Amino acid sequence: MILLEMPSIKKMEALAQSMHECISFAQGALRIGGVDQHTKEYARQILLSDKADYYQDPLGIAPLRQRLSLTLSERYGAKISPQQIFIGHGSLGALTSLVLTLLDAGDEVLLPEPTYPVYASLVKLAKGVPVFTPAYELLPSKSDQRSAWAFNLELLKSAITNQTKMVILSNPSNPTGVFLSPNELQELSWICENKGIYLIVDEVYDDYVYEGIFSSSTPYAAHSQFTIRLGSFSKNFGMSGWRVGYAVAHPELIAAVGPVQAASISNPTVISQYAALYALEHREYTDHYAAILKKNRDVMCSFFDSLETSGIVSYGRPSAGFYLFFKTENTDSTALVMDILQRSKVALTPGADYGPSAKQFVRLCFARDPELIAQGIARLQKYFSAKHQLTLFDTQHIAATL
Amino acid sequence: MILLEMPSIKKMEALAQSMHECISFAQGALRIGGVDQHTKEYARQILLSDKADYYQDPLGIAPLRQRLSLTLSERYGAKISPQQIFIGHGSLGALTSLVLTLLDAGDEVLLPEPTYPVYASLVKLAKGVPVFTPAYELLPSKSDQRSAWAFNLELLKSAITNQTKMVILSNPSNPTGVFLSPNELQELSWICENKGIYLIVDEVYDDYVYEGIFSSSTPYAAHSQFTIRLGSFSKNFGMSGWRVGYAVAHPELIAAVGPVQAASISNPTVISQYAALYALEHREYTDHYAAILKKNRDVMCSFFDSLETSGIVSYGRPSAGFYLFFKTENTDSTALVMDILQRSKVALTPGADYGPSAKQFVRLCFARDPELIAQGIARLQKYFSAKHQLTLFDTQHIAATL
Repeated sequence: MILLEMPSIKKMEALAQSMHECISFAQGALRIGGVDQHTKEYARQILLSDKADYYQDPLGIAPLRQRLSLTLSERYGAKISPQQIFIGHGSLGALTSLVLTLLDAGDEVLLPEPTYPVYASLVKLAKGVPVFTPAYELLPSKSDQRSAWAFNLELLKSAITNQTKMVILSNPSNPTGVFLSPNELQELSWICENKGIYLIVDEVYDDYVYEGIFSSSTPYAAHSQFTIRLGSFSKNFGMSGWRVGYAVAHPELIAAVGPVQAASISNPTVISQYAALYALEHREYTDHYAAILKKNRDVMCSFFDSLETSGIVSYGRPSAGFYLFFKTENTDSTALVMDILQRSKVALTPGADYGPSAKQFVRLCFARDPELIAQGIARLQKYFSAKHQLTLFDTQHIAATL
Repeated sequence: MILLEMPSIKKMEALAQSMHECISFAQGALRIGGVDQHTKEYARQILLSDKADYYQDPLGIAPLRQRLSLTLSERYGAKISPQQIFIGHGSLGALTSLVLTLLDAGDEVLLPEPTYPVYASLVKLAKGVPVFTPAYELLPSKSDQRSAWAFNLELLKSAITNQTKMVILSNPSNPTGVFLSPNELQELSWICENKGIYLIVDEVYDDYVYEGIFSSSTPYAAHSQFTIRLGSFSKNFGMSGWRVGYAVAHPELIAAVGPVQAASISNPTVISQYAALYALEHREYTDHYAAILKKNRDVMCSFFDSLETSGIVSYGRPSAGFYLFFKTENTDSTALVMDILQRSKVALTPGADYGPSAKQFVRLCFARDPELIAQGIARLQKYFSAKHQLTLFDTQHIAATL
């Protein structure tokens, strides 16, 4: 029997939902005005027929795989056929199918940390062994007084051993908000290819890049046996409840994933796939969200810049993604997060889940309506300006229930 | 890396869909006029709000777990709390979460055969070892000339060893259409409880019982550490594309499944759960389907009764479920199934997937519109009356691609 911990993200979100008028910056869902109404209207029309009622292809409905093949081929200048794409129950479901297909019991999977907590759980579910390895550093910025997160390829390279079967990383990174340079990505993909290591690049934040030019793994996935690219509709179109994502991989691997999805999920939910088909043709929705998120990022960073002697040691200005990942004075940030929740009704996520080196950190998701961002900042401002001495007895008691 | 075979059911269904005017009795989907329009209208109303847009509880939305707890408590006269229920991505998704939670690498899982093919694949995905054991027999009926399937508890009992960690069976049975007597179910549940073996009873056909009184494992699941009951909206409401099912189990086990679902699927699709919530309050839809299926069963059995010297050795009249599982003269029925598909454009499923003892058999799903049943019978009538010598060269060639 396997006993996993419920991720703190889910626990904090559940606590937030149970509290009256709590503002949640915990869960990494894009919550800006709900899913676009045109997308839902399209789904409503589909429901007038029986198109979505019955079992479909385990790897996803043909129109969505075809449309994705056109969209991705055009966007990345690489020929990607529908046989190189499969649809999952979210990008997470696609990742589940991949690890269940690829990992043998005892296989080691390298997780460059800070890392998205769920990867380690998924590796354990597939009877693999998660190996955390530091790869992102919060360094003083060269250009100004502020700190910035940096990816360190040498650290990651030095952690690869003969036992490494797979590397999973999110790029742009959840939680740090940085991404690999074109050269770093090329070198990493090349190393993995040469050593026969599967490299799964989770690019669900690919449309939320605020500075710099993001380099996608898609062209590598198009020609590789080992590089796999994950994509999402949850993050790009705010459809987290709909559960549609996809993976780009070698057609032989996808052929092996087919019976795995047939056995484990039968097929991704059909009505959701039709909604995704519509959304995919309306990139303007994502552009709209991205513009709001960039402003949210700026506002939130200005607020963090203004904080002094607040118990926050430093933070890294994210150049992409949904999150601010900041360092606190607490050796374990869980008590701090619980204290903030209690006193200010703002939900954040403690760092411990993101890897052994991340305990001192806290994640804040700014993919929210700007109004909520402003209200949340006002509450946090009040909290930090009061310079609370944490009442450790109380918070440890509550933290123990987290 | 794990390499599973795509189930023949999926392959035959895909072949059928690709052929012009093929009649498919292959896949076990209830296809009678589509999902009820009121259920879909309810889902359409939900889509006017943002209720279904975002992540929800990994174990299912609270209103559905609550409503199921009331419905099941009332139906089975046992108090079942929402904490004893979780929602899965179909009953299959619920089963996936259970085997991933419960099985350690190398654990043996007993599969009474003929068995639903996907169970063995799922056990392999969780790095367990599927152990097929004969448990259903096609015997001459006592009352008339016809044969009937019978469940043999002694056979199953004698296969249980110290290595057995789990038993998975469908009851009513897919593919044989029989179910355990109240005493057999009680004894099996008691044996498993005493030996600390998990007994997963897949009751997705519970509403399709044509003769006799079906005894559910739900009351055992309500009080047991080890008995688990699966239920479905796919079979009971024709919603196979919507992917909603559930399990009733011990609250501690469900607490362990929570983080497993959080890690692997995040949550079941939300809009589907709302549709299920509506369907659950409209059992009359299922009653409507069940009445049609009973007639279909009778018509199909009359047709099989009329077949003589046709290459069909015998069949068992099903007292429940969606299927007729009949014995052929072929040692491997795959060639026969392919010949029928080619000559008559009727898709059936070969027996080999249902267990080592089932190769000689063929499964026919009669959960279809009565018109389609009549047309299919006409085609099969023509096929069998022509008493084809199978052109083995052709069919083996095609069978090899299956």
